[in-house]
Amino acid sequence: MRVGYLGPPGTFSEEALLASAAGIGIGEDCERVALPTIRSVVLAVADGDVERAIVPIENSLEGSVNEALDALLHDAPAVHIVGETVLPVRYALIAREGVEVKDARLVLSHPQALAQCARFIRQSLPEAEARAATSTAEAVRTAVTSDEPACALGTPLAASLYGGRVLMQGVEDDHANMTRFAWLAADDVEDPRGDEAGAWKSSVVFSGEGDGTPGWLVACLSEFASRGVNLTRIESRPAKRRLGHYIFLIDVAGRAIGEGSAAEAVRALEPHCGAVRVLGIYAAAGAPSD
Amino acid sequence: MRVGYLGPPGTFSEEALLASAAGIGIGEDCERVALPTIRSVVLAVADGDVERAIVPIENSLEGSVNEALDALLHDAPAVHIVGETVLPVRYALIAREGVEVKDARLVLSHPQALAQCARFIRQSLPEAEARAATSTAEAVRTAVTSDEPACALGTPLAASLYGGRVLMQGVEDDHANMTRFAWLAADDVEDPRGDEAGAWKSSVVFSGEGDGTPGWLVACLSEFASRGVNLTRIESRPAKRRLGHYIFLIDVAGRAIGEGSAAEAVRALEPHCGAVRVLGIYAAAGAPSD
Repeated sequence: MRVGYLGPPGTFSEEALLASAAGIGIGEDCERVALPTIRSVVLAVADGDVERAIVPIENSLEGSVNEALDALLHDAPAVHIVGETVLPVRYALIAREGVEVKDARLVLSHPQALAQCARFIRQSLPEAEARAATSTAEAVRTAVTSDEPACALGTPLAASLYGGRVLMQGVEDDHANMTRFAWLAADDVEDPRGDEAGAWKSSVVFSGEGDGTPGWLVACLSEFASRGVNLTRIESRPAKRRLGHYIFLIDVAGRAIGEGSAAEAVRALEPHCGAVRVLGIYAAAGAPSD
Repeated sequence: MRVGYLGPPGTFSEEALLASAAGIGIGEDCERVALPTIRSVVLAVADGDVERAIVPIENSLEGSVNEALDALLHDAPAVHIVGETVLPVRYALIAREGVEVKDARLVLSHPQALAQCARFIRQSLPEAEARAATSTAEAVRTAVTSDEPACALGTPLAASLYGGRVLMQGVEDDHANMTRFAWLAADDVEDPRGDEAGAWKSSVVFSGEGDGTPGWLVACLSEFASRGVNLTRIESRPAKRRLGHYIFLIDVAGRAIGEGSAAEAVRALEPHCGAVRVLGIYAAAGAPSD
């Protein structure tokens, strides 16, 4: 099985893939396919280039990953979410053999990683120049092959792939930082673990011409609230027509298919909306965030 | 009066400033202060370095400008929105004297601008290499001073500031693309035009421990719907504690102060929430988007 993720090898996406593939029934013999952008990962599923893929969808500090949501909402109508996993964001400080923390004159990483380790850099690398890279994995590769005494913020996986050495672990300023990843497939694949997988969760996308009139959104959400269905997330994205029109993405507890309150609520949502789409029904991730 | 905006000179933010300052009572003799990031613009208002500022807050294709929202929500609790303006996103193709479209071997701009003119570049500059710059204004400055036959996508304002020549106007792929900007001040300044300014609009921020229980968000929004108060926008941002907890930002019609349904609804919202903040009450922008 070919499985897509945001490359190059050694990214957080690849770590999330390795940490959760077995849980959704993907064997160790899967072929991991590194792709250049989050959008291209989603499209690779839509085009059948890969059978499964994993994309970051939400971060506890940065919020939604809009590139993933927009690709799912606008460019890949047949792609489903078939699972999720939550990974703590841990940065390691990595350099080539022989470079110690006190030697480093350059610290490389993705701008978001530099921002999330700003206090650590200020305190432990006050002399080092911070320089942006296109990914944490690319930063590690560059630091390890640099002639200068450089270090990078990235994953231990990248350190081992590119021949780097981990100088320090867990150097992020906020240890509660988590990223939620979604597993994608072209068909709505049932979780092989069935009801044993844990609590079910459904992602539902809706929009409608009533958007912008008093009470429309409340009427839509009330279909869930009145049936006691818990809403764990609501996100709005531009409908891309003009300002003031949105597509709403909600995550609710339960299975939005068959019997049960979540499914009933989704059916009741339809008369309010021009479009309702069940983006996925999957086992909710255990919560390392709690 | 010192007025902050996202620099360097010649950005869309400066165009929005020039197009709308008079409308909110800022004279032509104001001193325009270019600042390096959107966050630094918000903080300059909080710190009193500038008396007013303008920041992009929402785009019809890209959605919310999270850097502006997060700075307002987390870093500048005393800063208010005191006005808004909507600007169509129009890109001009700019080069130095003597460089024609057919000569260009390089096209520079902010990555978002390159993406929003991708079709134009493919059709009209098929031979040119697209190269990212930190802002559209920086791209124009670089193109105009380059020895190579380079052009840039930016504003006519930047062309005139940096000695460039506009080769083509309105080269964006989607002419309906609009950006909404917010005017900021440290105090909640009344619009000098009073009720003549047009329809009032209020931005309200709320969050609460009930977040994540069935019906909590519906109960909050119902306070507005049940009073016939129109909701024009809802946005969630991470509460930055852990996944699954959010701060909600809504825009509603009317004045969230004194008498009237919007003010009543905001008072009724408080018992549901740990925190409610009226971010601003201001005249809604006329709608070039309609």
